[in-house]
Amino acid sequence: MSTSEREPAAATREMILAAATALFGDLDYPATSIRDIARAVDMLPGSLYAYVDNKEAILYAIVSTGIDQFVAAVESLDPSTAPDERLERAIRAHTDIVAENPQRALVVFHQWRYLGDESRAKVITARRRYEEFFRTTIREGVETGVFRSDLDVRYATLTTLGALNWAPEWIHADDPASADSGRKLADILLAGLRPFDEDTP
Amino acid sequence: MSTSEREPAAATREMILAAATALFGDLDYPATSIRDIARAVDMLPGSLYAYVDNKEAILYAIVSTGIDQFVAAVESLDPSTAPDERLERAIRAHTDIVAENPQRALVVFHQWRYLGDESRAKVITARRRYEEFFRTTIREGVETGVFRSDLDVRYATLTTLGALNWAPEWIHADDPASADSGRKLADILLAGLRPFDEDTP
Repeated sequence: MSTSEREPAAATREMILAAATALFGDLDYPATSIRDIARAVDMLPGSLYAYVDNKEAILYAIVSTGIDQFVAAVESLDPSTAPDERLERAIRAHTDIVAENPQRALVVFHQWRYLGDESRAKVITARRRYEEFFRTTIREGVETGVFRSDLDVRYATLTTLGALNWAPEWIHADDPASADSGRKLADILLAGLRPFDEDTP
Repeated sequence: MSTSEREPAAATREMILAAATALFGDLDYPATSIRDIARAVDMLPGSLYAYVDNKEAILYAIVSTGIDQFVAAVESLDPSTAPDERLERAIRAHTDIVAENPQRALVVFHQWRYLGDESRAKVITARRRYEEFFRTTIREGVETGVFRSDLDVRYATLTTLGALNWAPEWIHADDPASADSGRKLADILLAGLRPFDEDTP
């Protein structure tokens, strides 16, 4: 297949995934049929199978690409940056990705549950890797004294992840303030982790 | 109907709602049928209709009772308590309710989306009322100086609600540490809202 033949196919596949993301967001995966997706991209259901194997493969493509984007964003941060600054950048990177397409983020965060065992296991591994970045960064912050020495790392991680996972519920793609959201969330989350003045190193 | 006749009917209805909660939690509302629910309580689908109108009425009963429980818990807190202490108690009340039945909390927090327009509107009103308690308490904390004067109330509320809404994902009913979860979450969340030493009133 020449490049010129491959590119339209990739573009069609992207168009199918984008339409499916919107439908899964509106109706949820179980209530969306291949027929609905085909109708949304103005194709016959049979023609869709030239681009995607089946409905589960569509969900897996959306969810795995989505979670990989979150993981790549935090893992590309310079590990030599101070842990508090690295955490702030990670929070901002997270809200930036959510703001690109909050509906896609909701599908990525919630609808992985509908995947079959094998795909679900892969997604869970990627999610754990993402969560691990936050846990490790917070632990490093405690060890280096930029966060409180008595901070409960598990609960600090759960608080941070909770606030981040909730973001697609209130960030709107067309909200002019969404660029600011990451900074404001980071301000509050980091204030909860920093030492009180008396035990500043 | 005498009390002795009414009570078994109420108990049967509770049993149906409990079985439906578990099924909605496992399979999600759209993938659960009245037949599945009947099977789980060892009844014929036709017999179920003596206790519940239809599948949506079951979901509405679960979700509205659930959200009302959260609202009642925070609204029963003494409004004369200092806002930081009131917020801590609310966070603990929230995690206590989640720990009673984390799966029910997940259904209450997420599956209201499947309700018809009228029921969904009622649930959204109750959810807003719950969120309003946190916003008002945090705002009052800023106004009385127990929280930072420059705190962004909107983001502080979103951070708090995010951490609370995420709790059913990691609190396990059989976790011996779950009683402690509320206190630990509150510690971190409140530390993020309190004044830095230099602007303590």
